Amino acid sequence: MVVDRKAESPLHKQIYDGFRAAILRRELRPGQRIPSSRELAAELRISRFPVLNAYSQLLAEGYFESRVGAGTFVSGSLPEQRMSVALPNTASVQTPSGPRPVAHRSFLYPTFHGHAAVLGWGAFGVHQPALDQFPFQTWSSLVARHSRNPGAHAIHYVNPLGTERFREAIADYLRTARGVKCDIGQIMIVSGSQQALDITARVLFDPGDPVWIEEPGYRLQRSVLIAAGCRIIPIPVDEEGMNVAAGIRTRRKAKAAFVTPSHHYPLGVTMSASRRLQLLNWAQHSGAWIVEDDYDSEYRYESLPIASLHGLDVNQRVIYIGTFSKVMFASLRLGYIVIPPDLVERFIAVRHVMDIFPPYLYQEVLSDFINEGHFTRHIRKMRQVYSEKRTALVESLRAEFGEELEIHGAEAGMHMAITLQEDLQDVEMAAKAARERLWLWPLSPSYLGEKPRKGFVLGFGSTPRDLIPQHVRHLRTILSTG
Amino acid sequence: MVVDRKAESPLHKQIYDGFRAAILRRELRPGQRIPSSRELAAELRISRFPVLNAYSQLLAEGYFESRVGAGTFVSGSLPEQRMSVALPNTASVQTPSGPRPVAHRSFLYPTFHGHAAVLGWGAFGVHQPALDQFPFQTWSSLVARHSRNPGAHAIHYVNPLGTERFREAIADYLRTARGVKCDIGQIMIVSGSQQALDITARVLFDPGDPVWIEEPGYRLQRSVLIAAGCRIIPIPVDEEGMNVAAGIRTRRKAKAAFVTPSHHYPLGVTMSASRRLQLLNWAQHSGAWIVEDDYDSEYRYESLPIASLHGLDVNQRVIYIGTFSKVMFASLRLGYIVIPPDLVERFIAVRHVMDIFPPYLYQEVLSDFINEGHFTRHIRKMRQVYSEKRTALVESLRAEFGEELEIHGAEAGMHMAITLQEDLQDVEMAAKAARERLWLWPLSPSYLGEKPRKGFVLGFGSTPRDLIPQHVRHLRTILSTG
Repeated sequence: MVVDRKAESPLHKQIYDGFRAAILRRELRPGQRIPSSRELAAELRISRFPVLNAYSQLLAEGYFESRVGAGTFVSGSLPEQRMSVALPNTASVQTPSGPRPVAHRSFLYPTFHGHAAVLGWGAFGVHQPALDQFPFQTWSSLVARHSRNPGAHAIHYVNPLGTERFREAIADYLRTARGVKCDIGQIMIVSGSQQALDITARVLFDPGDPVWIEEPGYRLQRSVLIAAGCRIIPIPVDEEGMNVAAGIRTRRKAKAAFVTPSHHYPLGVTMSASRRLQLLNWAQHSGAWIVEDDYDSEYRYESLPIASLHGLDVNQRVIYIGTFSKVMFASLRLGYIVIPPDLVERFIAVRHVMDIFPPYLYQEVLSDFINEGHFTRHIRKMRQVYSEKRTALVESLRAEFGEELEIHGAEAGMHMAITLQEDLQDVEMAAKAARERLWLWPLSPSYLGEKPRKGFVLGFGSTPRDLIPQHVRHLRTILSTG
Repeated sequence: MVVDRKAESPLHKQIYDGFRAAILRRELRPGQRIPSSRELAAELRISRFPVLNAYSQLLAEGYFESRVGAGTFVSGSLPEQRMSVALPNTASVQTPSGPRPVAHRSFLYPTFHGHAAVLGWGAFGVHQPALDQFPFQTWSSLVARHSRNPGAHAIHYVNPLGTERFREAIADYLRTARGVKCDIGQIMIVSGSQQALDITARVLFDPGDPVWIEEPGYRLQRSVLIAAGCRIIPIPVDEEGMNVAAGIRTRRKAKAAFVTPSHHYPLGVTMSASRRLQLLNWAQHSGAWIVEDDYDSEYRYESLPIASLHGLDVNQRVIYIGTFSKVMFASLRLGYIVIPPDLVERFIAVRHVMDIFPPYLYQEVLSDFINEGHFTRHIRKMRQVYSEKRTALVESLRAEFGEELEIHGAEAGMHMAITLQEDLQDVEMAAKAARERLWLWPLSPSYLGEKPRKGFVLGFGSTPRDLIPQHVRHLRTILSTG
């Protein structure tokens, strides 16, 4: 044992490391006697304190054991064979050996590629709100109000549904703005629509269950269902939304249908009244659930917002999902589920095991933001802002592309879809555009079938209105130089 | 059609509701002609604006259709049969009919009961930190710093691992305080140890996979594994931690072992060096994973914190889980996983489908809190505070109960376990104590086997030190009047 008084590492640590390494290397054998702290201190010519400190640590961790009246020994219960463990102060660059099995079902989850279009911010970015219009002054004063002096309640609140106050604010909003009537006991706060979909799938589906989805549809919704082991049945979407009759012909018996009736993703279609009634009828007669993902229904430009499917349902078959990622901002990570009363108990059971309860602060802040009228005011203002951006985008697209381009779903939300000639390589084009900082999403990956339409989803939320014409010109240049 | 000018509902809404109800009740049939807006306005003696407004909404939603040159009609595609849908302004109290199937596997999740001991705050509450000592002034000034002027990056940050800055702060902390060496690419920010366990189970396990767990053990950890369909193999914990040799005798081949080596929950034992080496050896030879849940290792009173199991592992078989719920506060909802490099890709795939990415604000705030030294200072201070509370609790228990009571695991953390005579009805007693506002957790539900030890887990984090003697007297009264 040697120690170095000038080393950066304190003496007790050097002694601890020295003994531990010697034991792990089998230079000291189980049962071997260790000099007393007094003897070692004398030998090393140091004070006894660091030695005592190191010994007590080695005893606490079980490398040493002390026998009353006999002294201190290397623990007799340490394994006899040489261990491959990390020695102190050595870099462990060894390549791991032996089988390293993960779950077969973990491969049901698609590899995350961090697509440029997801990561980039700005021109045509999808699902990106106009942050320059967000009232951050108001917002941060509410944040400060709740972070300065939180009570124990705020800090230790354990309710898998979320806070009552926040759920009340949401219930009020849903009743007046979305025609959703529900009790606050049916509302569960989640981290966004993705977690809502995941919890829903865990409650509803066993492996092999058939589920209707929209074709084309939202990729991350599909991923949730595939990961849950569902058999997904793509049902074509036309200009009235999901074609329910086609679904019944394809496979009448399904456990659920997942739809975006207010503003279809990606095509932007609004589901018509007759399709809504057909879907509710089908669900009631075949004992199926409907999952309504209402991700950006707040913005509608040529009529009032369309009332929710949930509001038409008397059979409590609709699970309604909403999010604040679009109206507020995504890094809030707040959304909600409106759950049929008889399913609430199972939703809570699943949620509790997944992550216990949602974080507190933003629930409180957003409750105030809603209750004090900022939320409604913000939506009203943004509807105007987005309406202008939308008009600018439609006009620029018409001016640049004329009749060779078709625009879909420009009546609502923060995105529209465009289609051009069928042989367009939209995935490659989008990658190319991303290198020039235009963040379009290709349309074809939204299809499961073999004949996807080619085109792009264009967001206009975060794009400054004045820059829209030049971005569209840029887009045209990229597409024409193929 | 009648309208009421004095009604609260605006005229356009009355017209919209009137037509919609008539259509849903089949008083107006598909294909039937609707009076022009001019005709209806004249008939109702109102301006044409509200009529136009209502018509455009009914057209947008697909209840009406217009045929060029012919006028406006009830949509021909509406289903012929009478619908059971919710009519405007009627309460839908109908009992839902038909089958309402949920997943068989959803019943693997235990029903959430909201136990008093989980919900109550104060005397003996487990996992409750001393919030009165938390530097909320400092904290809230950091919160304000980051909420006042966040950039687009802050607001739209999409990285399933979490922010780089926060992962760097955690990597530094783990290296110096826990002996965990890792690259920031191995760290994933999650909402707490529960989500960490859930993601880990999704990556590692297929239904039927055998997994070692500690007996007794942490109930919510067990729930994750049961929900994942694992075959859980309870391995007895003695005064050195999980008995690895017993595990090998029971079932050598398992896919993973879940352990709390720094401070076993609930018994508070520290896993000895020899058991750690045995466990690592077993994992390497049988190709198994080790999940190390290091939930409150920061507080150790009679020696330095015990280095992690992760730090001894050269075979990259340890998945290390940490949380800020105990050192900071639970409603933060922040924790992390240190992932073996070859598993990172699967962890990201699963996390992305579950909830995309963690919320931003607190990651930034906590990065500053760590980087500016507040975190280390807070831990140092709390170690002293809890050490005093712990001593007060041990002394009070000794004074009140003498030798009839055994204390377990008082060397570390924010809780200790006590056991008394075997015939104690700990579950009933804990319920009784909760009615008198003492929040003990019964010990026996932590066991899976048929002969659980009876006793209680006593938290001392949030209990004021001066009140500890009287709470212990109160506890004695409750137990003796059993």
